Amino acid sequence: MNKNIALIYGDCSSPEIVTQAVRVLDKIAAKHGHTFTYTRAYMGGEAIDKFGDPLPASELEKCKASDSVLLGAIGGPKWEGMPGDKRPEKGLLRLRAGMGLYANNRPAKIWPQLAAASPLKAEIVAKGIDFIVVRELIGGVYFGEHKTYEENGEKVAVDTMPYAEHEIERIGRIGFETAMKRRKKLTCVDKANVLDTSRLWRAVMHRLAAEYPEVEYSEMFVDNCAMQICKNPAQFDVIVTENMFGDILSDEASEITGSIGMVPSSSLGESSCGLYEPIHGSAPDIAGQDVVNPIACILSAAMMLRYSFDMPAEADEIEAAVNAVLDKGLRTADMMAEGCTQVGCTAMGDAILAEL
Amino acid sequence: MNKNIALIYGDCSSPEIVTQAVRVLDKIAAKHGHTFTYTRAYMGGEAIDKFGDPLPASELEKCKASDSVLLGAIGGPKWEGMPGDKRPEKGLLRLRAGMGLYANNRPAKIWPQLAAASPLKAEIVAKGIDFIVVRELIGGVYFGEHKTYEENGEKVAVDTMPYAEHEIERIGRIGFETAMKRRKKLTCVDKANVLDTSRLWRAVMHRLAAEYPEVEYSEMFVDNCAMQICKNPAQFDVIVTENMFGDILSDEASEITGSIGMVPSSSLGESSCGLYEPIHGSAPDIAGQDVVNPIACILSAAMMLRYSFDMPAEADEIEAAVNAVLDKGLRTADMMAEGCTQVGCTAMGDAILAEL
Ligand SMILES: CC(C)[C@H](C(=O)O)[C@@H](O)C(=O)O
Ligand SMILES: CC(C)[C@H](C(=O)O)[C@@H](O)C(=O)O
Repeated sequence: MNKNIALIYGDCSSPEIVTQAVRVLDKIAAKHGHTFTYTRAYMGGEAIDKFGDPLPASELEKCKASDSVLLGAIGGPKWEGMPGDKRPEKGLLRLRAGMGLYANNRPAKIWPQLAAASPLKAEIVAKGIDFIVVRELIGGVYFGEHKTYEENGEKVAVDTMPYAEHEIERIGRIGFETAMKRRKKLTCVDKANVLDTSRLWRAVMHRLAAEYPEVEYSEMFVDNCAMQICKNPAQFDVIVTENMFGDILSDEASEITGSIGMVPSSSLGESSCGLYEPIHGSAPDIAGQDVVNPIACILSAAMMLRYSFDMPAEADEIEAAVNAVLDKGLRTADMMAEGCTQVGCTAMGDAILAEL
Repeated sequence: MNKNIALIYGDCSSPEIVTQAVRVLDKIAAKHGHTFTYTRAYMGGEAIDKFGDPLPASELEKCKASDSVLLGAIGGPKWEGMPGDKRPEKGLLRLRAGMGLYANNRPAKIWPQLAAASPLKAEIVAKGIDFIVVRELIGGVYFGEHKTYEENGEKVAVDTMPYAEHEIERIGRIGFETAMKRRKKLTCVDKANVLDTSRLWRAVMHRLAAEYPEVEYSEMFVDNCAMQICKNPAQFDVIVTENMFGDILSDEASEITGSIGMVPSSSLGESSCGLYEPIHGSAPDIAGQDVVNPIACILSAAMMLRYSFDMPAEADEIEAAVNAVLDKGLRTADMMAEGCTQVGCTAMGDAILAEL
């Protein structure tokens, strides 16, 4: 197959990981007779530097015209303190919205080789951590109205958190469909004792639950969920939740796996053209040192093959290669542990290529 | 001293814990020559049953007229599915707002005797967990406008999250003052890369930081904070944050102490009349069995003595008594561990009284 991939190299240490992911993609393409062509797109800090805009229309168009987008991570101290519209993050939010990517899929899974790195006790980890946070990505308080004004001689800021039924329904459906392909348990996380949006979420979810009688559906308050993720993560299969709660809970979830440098994510909308990126940030402190962990980005590329290009065998091969290098004890600095061999970013890429 | 305490017995298993806290208060009063009188006030499920309203004006008045309010916990399956205004939680929210209690103080502290109950690894716990979440309690999305309406043939819900400078300044000041009395580290947690309210928080906090040069002030995004609480809780001394983030993070924080049945809280405003309550819920599943853990409520009473009645010695005595019973290996069911002696709610109260 021929596929055109938009590459966003990203900021700080991010180009180093995207470079390794591209090497892996090329190797897989050669092996399976695919042709992957790449279109470079600029977003985030790099785009601010080049165009004075974190996502110029031209770059969004490149992404929309591609078969999918691979991103490293954006942002860094250089662009901090810039006005709201000139911040790298704004480019990411506009990319998600511009591509209509409402469904963000963030897996929290223990890699057995790295289980000891979890901050949770071994007995909790042993019960299994393998769940997915399905986060609504282009609604809620991220995309509601934001304003700051003067009133009675002081400043007042207001953020609005809107949700319409169709926005809830489409992400709710992804939640149920994801659960159907897994252990058939779905937990809707909200704050229905306080928020109107949460009560509307529940109403819509109840309607959907009737369509998926095989799925064991339940509801949990977000404060309780933040506790349960630490206390008993094995209880979760799929969590579906709104944008802001998903942001918070998926970060907590990836942390308890002990290997945030390993967690990929996908963002999808109505078409197969998605955005694939690691959960972790752009690690400015280690940029240019060839020590950053490329695996989350490589696994994001594998997710792209699986979910957007319908190439499950190819995705499996990449995941197996990652598994093999971990089995051999190779670790980047962030995952380093006793008895293992520390390697840099390029060397980790080399090792994964060698397995393919 | 003479003090009048409004008692809200609360729902489900809550009256059992309030009963034990009152016994402790009476004993302390007798010992130190104080007179505590009690006024019973109704709020939550009990008030719905009695008055059809989770907080009638009469009950709010009783609380405001008191020297402070001691609450167990409210809510339960009986009142679930009731309309928004007829829910127990609504009574609590109206009580907080009606009394002007903007500063919610939620300590996360490891009891050495219970350290093994933390879901975190021993090596993380050993670094120390002793921080306070200072949560803004009567602003933000909890008290903004909530509405649900029809638009283009579907329902749309909108919650609004407003913050005015004076609301941020008064809680920010509590954050700095609390830090000054402790290890002088304050972390402001927000989502300033997305929210206007967060950016206003930061602007106000920067102003305050200049007034407290001794305090090491920093800022953290809420998603990162949810990770850091699991990864390295020892880094925190005082966290100051808005209402919803505080709800989520303080629950996560109490969970990692491994003893949610032990965590008290205070809510204060401009006067010394505060509201004191456990962090935990009303435990409907064990109501009426005399097995619920009364310690969080007893420690809430101790907090009342310390912060509202200026009776630090009396508070110290209660905390020492709790410490002593833990040292003796007495545990309610929720804390039970090998080699300890399981006791019920009343027996735990007896044991604490015996220490006083
Ligand atoms: C950078 C930021 C705006 C973003 C978000 O909050 O969505 C990030 O935290 C994420 O989760 O991808
Ligand atoms: C009951 C609920 C409205 C309340 C809140 O969210 O404030 C509770 O979770 C708490 O933290 O005291």
